[in-house]
Amino acid sequence: MSRPAGAQSLEDSGFVKEIPPKAAQFSEWYTAVVLKAELADYSPVRGCIVVRPYGYTIWELMQQGLDRRFKATGHVNAYFPLFIPQGFLAREAEHVEGFAPEVAWVTRGGGEELAEPLAVRPTSETIIGHMYARWIKSYRDLPVLINQWGNVVRWEKATRPFLRTMEFLWQEGHTAHRTAEEAEAEARQMLEVYRDFVETDLAIPVLAGRKPESEKFPGAVRSYTIEALMPDGQALQSGTSHDLGQNFARAFGIKFLDSDNAEKHVYTTSWGVSWRVLGGLIMVHGDDRGLVVPPRVAPFQAVIVPILSGKDRDAVLAGARALAGQLTEAGVRVRLDDRTEVTPGYKFNDWEMRGVPLRLELGPRDLAQRQVVLVPRVGGAKRSTPLDGIAQAVSDALAAMGGEMFDRAKAYLDAHIVSAATVDELVEAVAQRRGFVRVHACDADACEQRLRQASGASPRVVVDEPADGPCLACGVPATHVVYYARAY
Amino acid sequence: MSRPAGAQSLEDSGFVKEIPPKAAQFSEWYTAVVLKAELADYSPVRGCIVVRPYGYTIWELMQQGLDRRFKATGHVNAYFPLFIPQGFLAREAEHVEGFAPEVAWVTRGGGEELAEPLAVRPTSETIIGHMYARWIKSYRDLPVLINQWGNVVRWEKATRPFLRTMEFLWQEGHTAHRTAEEAEAEARQMLEVYRDFVETDLAIPVLAGRKPESEKFPGAVRSYTIEALMPDGQALQSGTSHDLGQNFARAFGIKFLDSDNAEKHVYTTSWGVSWRVLGGLIMVHGDDRGLVVPPRVAPFQAVIVPILSGKDRDAVLAGARALAGQLTEAGVRVRLDDRTEVTPGYKFNDWEMRGVPLRLELGPRDLAQRQVVLVPRVGGAKRSTPLDGIAQAVSDALAAMGGEMFDRAKAYLDAHIVSAATVDELVEAVAQRRGFVRVHACDADACEQRLRQASGASPRVVVDEPADGPCLACGVPATHVVYYARAY
Repeated sequence: MSRPAGAQSLEDSGFVKEIPPKAAQFSEWYTAVVLKAELADYSPVRGCIVVRPYGYTIWELMQQGLDRRFKATGHVNAYFPLFIPQGFLAREAEHVEGFAPEVAWVTRGGGEELAEPLAVRPTSETIIGHMYARWIKSYRDLPVLINQWGNVVRWEKATRPFLRTMEFLWQEGHTAHRTAEEAEAEARQMLEVYRDFVETDLAIPVLAGRKPESEKFPGAVRSYTIEALMPDGQALQSGTSHDLGQNFARAFGIKFLDSDNAEKHVYTTSWGVSWRVLGGLIMVHGDDRGLVVPPRVAPFQAVIVPILSGKDRDAVLAGARALAGQLTEAGVRVRLDDRTEVTPGYKFNDWEMRGVPLRLELGPRDLAQRQVVLVPRVGGAKRSTPLDGIAQAVSDALAAMGGEMFDRAKAYLDAHIVSAATVDELVEAVAQRRGFVRVHACDADACEQRLRQASGASPRVVVDEPADGPCLACGVPATHVVYYARAY
Repeated sequence: MSRPAGAQSLEDSGFVKEIPPKAAQFSEWYTAVVLKAELADYSPVRGCIVVRPYGYTIWELMQQGLDRRFKATGHVNAYFPLFIPQGFLAREAEHVEGFAPEVAWVTRGGGEELAEPLAVRPTSETIIGHMYARWIKSYRDLPVLINQWGNVVRWEKATRPFLRTMEFLWQEGHTAHRTAEEAEAEARQMLEVYRDFVETDLAIPVLAGRKPESEKFPGAVRSYTIEALMPDGQALQSGTSHDLGQNFARAFGIKFLDSDNAEKHVYTTSWGVSWRVLGGLIMVHGDDRGLVVPPRVAPFQAVIVPILSGKDRDAVLAGARALAGQLTEAGVRVRLDDRTEVTPGYKFNDWEMRGVPLRLELGPRDLAQRQVVLVPRVGGAKRSTPLDGIAQAVSDALAAMGGEMFDRAKAYLDAHIVSAATVDELVEAVAQRRGFVRVHACDADACEQRLRQASGASPRVVVDEPADGPCLACGVPATHVVYYARAY
């Protein structure tokens, strides 16, 4: 059993004593936060992680935030097989080229060698395309708006918890439409759903736009992306949406009889978000004390730490329980930490490290004065707050913290978008980790290759801005504005 | 691409014209309902099904019913890898014997042959046991109460949608405890959670009890089961819960330092329910008109069919929309069928076939009289109901239908439990598909073998009843009462 590249030894992980400083040792900081906050752990299978309950609860809340938005836009969930026949992957030429090298193959089952190996799905366009060809007969069957929650496998060399793992959990939407316009509108709509989810629920600002041709999904006509900026100046692709045109419809024969009695191919889209954005959440919001979880996806939005001492002990504990009940009633996810084997100070550090947005301290004097000490994890000062109306105060503090977290990240993003007017400026900005580098470019592949090779960065996202200057590489009038960055 | 045994051809499925009579052609009826109600479809992968949106929504509602109960009993969710190293399965002797023949193996990945093949998980005791050994150090870490929602793969020869599929979705709970008593109590508690879920949410009565030794989960000390009775007289194992004692703790070295400073092995349990119970739901409740979905897990609990004719058309449609809004507001899952290309009669048949519990018909005269015609799918007569207070009336009708469905199924179960005093009576009862056959038995393996071979049935569940007679096979005083049946 080999270990993932860069992993600590199995014996060490989970026993992180200290979290290294975020700025100085970013990579070690990330791993320490993941392990120490018990978000995930390494597994005995190369490249696969175990998502522990605290991390999984964040993922469940993320799923709920996305699923609610999918259903509000008319989508329904379904489930397609984990295994894909070898021949299916080969049907769409670009698709097989993109995914075949990363596939895990089942070659034996039930004690026998299989006549045709089965791919463990790296993505499901092919098998879903096959089923759509059977289900769709008439224009009245359209659109088909299906999403799937599940696991996929892509054989990766280097792996990092959440950011790049061999198996990962995600959702993949697959839709079929009557016209090219509808498919394009769907792909753009889902990009907007992703942007809203990541910015609102995860408090992570993103650049939204189109992928350059060279970075498209294998088999797509157009790919859209939201890109977030990490504190080390690298971009994190956080969600993609693809207009697949009729490429998969042709490869799998997905046809319908239109109202004009003509048989036509449908237009399809696909779009996905994985647990990778949980990695983004850790990197963007965490600090030297550990994790900071945005309130909307925090397993515990508030932790109550009773200060238990002497004769008032029982009264304080009863008060803390009543407070917990009251907050739960009001829909706040609250945890009462009534452990007796550790001190309040230990608890403060423990929950700060785990990134719980609010701490509520309740001692004998607070109880006597009908108040609680409210301590936000970030932004906002420690303050005494009356127990009357505490649910509203907690709710307000959570909303304020979510806004504050987004604003901080947005200020960072805005401060880390620089323009380059020459290749040298691009190279220098990338070398100095200044973030996204705004570049004017033409459509020539040779120009993109030159910019990539000179800078070591890749074109992340083409934005909807007028191209009013010359191509950085060749000097002809640019056709688009594109942001370059190194990327995860 | 081979097809599952007994499957219709791929070209035919999904185009079932008529549903055969349930009583006369039970197996064909089942397949027809699954396909025609669009619960699932065959896939191009042998033994794997596609769960279509209507079927998947039922599964989602089942998941919610179970997950709520798991969390109410202190459990949290996590996620462990899909792949398990070959060596892990072999660590627990009975476990490997039980599962190795059914495993699908990944032998190639990333373009290379693997040094050690990876099993696609058939169940996760081994890899979870490995992780628990790393996480659990002290008695203060106990109990660990984790559940996982996911997919597993077991290579099956014969397959049927939901009932037996190569890949299936399920949940698997895995807990670790300080004492044998706590583990046993957990295993029993989860059996009770399953019984409550299946009887309350799915309206399916079950026999709950212990598995005989020969039918235990591979590696368990004691296995518990809930068994439902299908209309063809066969039993359907609907959920199992296992007290694993220290077997897996020893195999994987899951030890803790107890408060007496002694190092001890933990006691573990595991328990699971799969989408197989969705097959049970279809068989138990469906009729010659098609599916009947219990209200608690119905994707649409009520469908509104407006009777649109002539000049009142717009008013009726507006009334139907207002009604749908009112019911949605009240928490009823409602669908307004405002299709214009089909007749109301077509819609009535269509939604009856799909098993929607309540139909609400709204025509011009109903609207004028401020009423709606309410038609329950089963039990209860068609009746006019005032629009004032309609949400309560719908809610009451749904509750009544759920109760009625359970009562009918319970009456069937009660009428199909027979006692056998001789081997011949057992044989005849099984041959005549009389249901569960109550048998007194001793612990001798030879006796069980004789009863199995003579009857073709298996001992499904040992119940908590006094054994006050002789063993059916050998005549010595019986040690237990066990129910025999053929089983899915």
